Amino acid sequence: MKTPRITGVLAPVVTPFRADYAPDAERFVRHCRWLLDHGCAGLAVFGTNSEANSMSVAEKADLLDALVAGGVPAAKLMPGTGACALSDSVALTRKAVALGCGGVLMLPPFYYKGVSDEGLYRNFAEVVERVGDARLQLYLYHIPPVSGVPITLALIERLLKSYPQAVAGAKDSSGDWNNTQAMLEAFGASGFDVFPGSEVFLLDGLRAGGKGCITATGNVNPAAIDNVYRNWRSKQADALQAGITATRKIVQSVPMIPALKATIAHYADDREWTRLRPPLVELTAAEEKKLIEGLEADGFTMPGIEAVACPVH
Amino acid sequence: MKTPRITGVLAPVVTPFRADYAPDAERFVRHCRWLLDHGCAGLAVFGTNSEANSMSVAEKADLLDALVAGGVPAAKLMPGTGACALSDSVALTRKAVALGCGGVLMLPPFYYKGVSDEGLYRNFAEVVERVGDARLQLYLYHIPPVSGVPITLALIERLLKSYPQAVAGAKDSSGDWNNTQAMLEAFGASGFDVFPGSEVFLLDGLRAGGKGCITATGNVNPAAIDNVYRNWRSKQADALQAGITATRKIVQSVPMIPALKATIAHYADDREWTRLRPPLVELTAAEEKKLIEGLEADGFTMPGIEAVACPVH
Repeated sequence: MKTPRITGVLAPVVTPFRADYAPDAERFVRHCRWLLDHGCAGLAVFGTNSEANSMSVAEKADLLDALVAGGVPAAKLMPGTGACALSDSVALTRKAVALGCGGVLMLPPFYYKGVSDEGLYRNFAEVVERVGDARLQLYLYHIPPVSGVPITLALIERLLKSYPQAVAGAKDSSGDWNNTQAMLEAFGASGFDVFPGSEVFLLDGLRAGGKGCITATGNVNPAAIDNVYRNWRSKQADALQAGITATRKIVQSVPMIPALKATIAHYADDREWTRLRPPLVELTAAEEKKLIEGLEADGFTMPGIEAVACPVH
Repeated sequence: MKTPRITGVLAPVVTPFRADYAPDAERFVRHCRWLLDHGCAGLAVFGTNSEANSMSVAEKADLLDALVAGGVPAAKLMPGTGACALSDSVALTRKAVALGCGGVLMLPPFYYKGVSDEGLYRNFAEVVERVGDARLQLYLYHIPPVSGVPITLALIERLLKSYPQAVAGAKDSSGDWNNTQAMLEAFGASGFDVFPGSEVFLLDGLRAGGKGCITATGNVNPAAIDNVYRNWRSKQADALQAGITATRKIVQSVPMIPALKATIAHYADDREWTRLRPPLVELTAAEEKKLIEGLEADGFTMPGIEAVACPVH
């Protein structure tokens, strides 16, 4: 019934927008295919880096349809489906499960701050119950620096106890290795798959029982990150890790989401990719110059990325 | 073209939910009518206290339709229409304007933190442009303790310059009187209507040029708050203000949103009102006891509130 668990490197795929800010399905599908051809084991579409919360449920459902129609295997998709509104979370999760997605990555409702674990438990439990489908593989999305609403170990424990079949793992974007380690120690052995939210923790994560990583820079540097994943037991592992960590530092020397888009735009020679939906904005010319010069000096390349460019609509 | 500006006391109306967490339109309409009959000049439905972000755009649009069908004058409505997704903000704002609502109260997109004024400007500007209706009266909703995204004076200034007809005012729920005062000093004289987000600042606000208040406790204590509004120039004003401030302190001695619902449930003798949608939860028995005992000791009443009770569905 369930698809095999996704392990390895997943990109929270950036979403291209047209001049009228409509999601650009054509460029999105092309980029997703490029990612799967160049090292990504799966695609965490509709993540923080995807500007997912800047889109409506209907816009995201349409993009999922476009991906599947465009030949992207649903089993490799782990769309973000968590919203502030329970009804929205249920609607998009149902859609993802119906399409056969390999999993869903679920934010907690993030408007109210300081909410109780009881309230968060009810939210996730309602989604699982209402979706009511044995194919559901739910990954919890812990990103307190942005969401403001942490997913505690106690909450994970309670959800795993109630829904051992549905709750498949977590993405930990806390940036706090101690928390990732605590998740792995508490639940890793029982089939709860933990993905650090940055490749900086990829090797440490794998050594502690993690299953890969879901990382922003997976959008632009998937092959090198995948190379660490494939060779983490080798003697070269630490050197390979140092390489991808260095590349990440260059990318995150400027604001991350526009940096990813500017990188694709530069290497694909397609300025359409630089656009962001409000409230996010593109890099300044100076930031873009700093980013590209840093990448060039690092010997960075994106083989075959020309294929993600499309005619301007 | 535009409806007259709403001034006075507005309640961010709490939303009743049925056992399946569906919005309870019948109780909602009854409570809205009670509020207008007992001191509210307007209804800021879909605010923070309304659990608005816990509902989908479609659920909110349906509630607006139910209000108008139920005899609530659209001109007295100031629904919250700001969402993380530009497309959602536009859709709900269009709906509100088409119905003839007196205004809309707009949150900034609140998922990303630390966003630029440029990005927020683009968000609000796109909404105004896309709605493209001279009837739009947009009130900016500044509530950084919850949204995490402040609306700065510089942003207001820029929006007022670009859209002097559409930008009508703001609700300031910062809890920081200095900020409210700064808003009033900078823009109050030019027709920008400022509403403090708590009746604690009602009298101070009126004396500084404010237009009323939009306050949680307007859901349960509208007549007394309205009495301050009506008599703010009288000798009794400070004593009246002290009275409503004391009542608010009792209500906010426990978590505010469930407290409002528990108060209505108690005085309407209708336990259906105690329910909240996840991630919020109802008061504990001890909290509810503390709340009701406090209100009773204060001599608190809700005349006619029995009318908001309905049969259990």
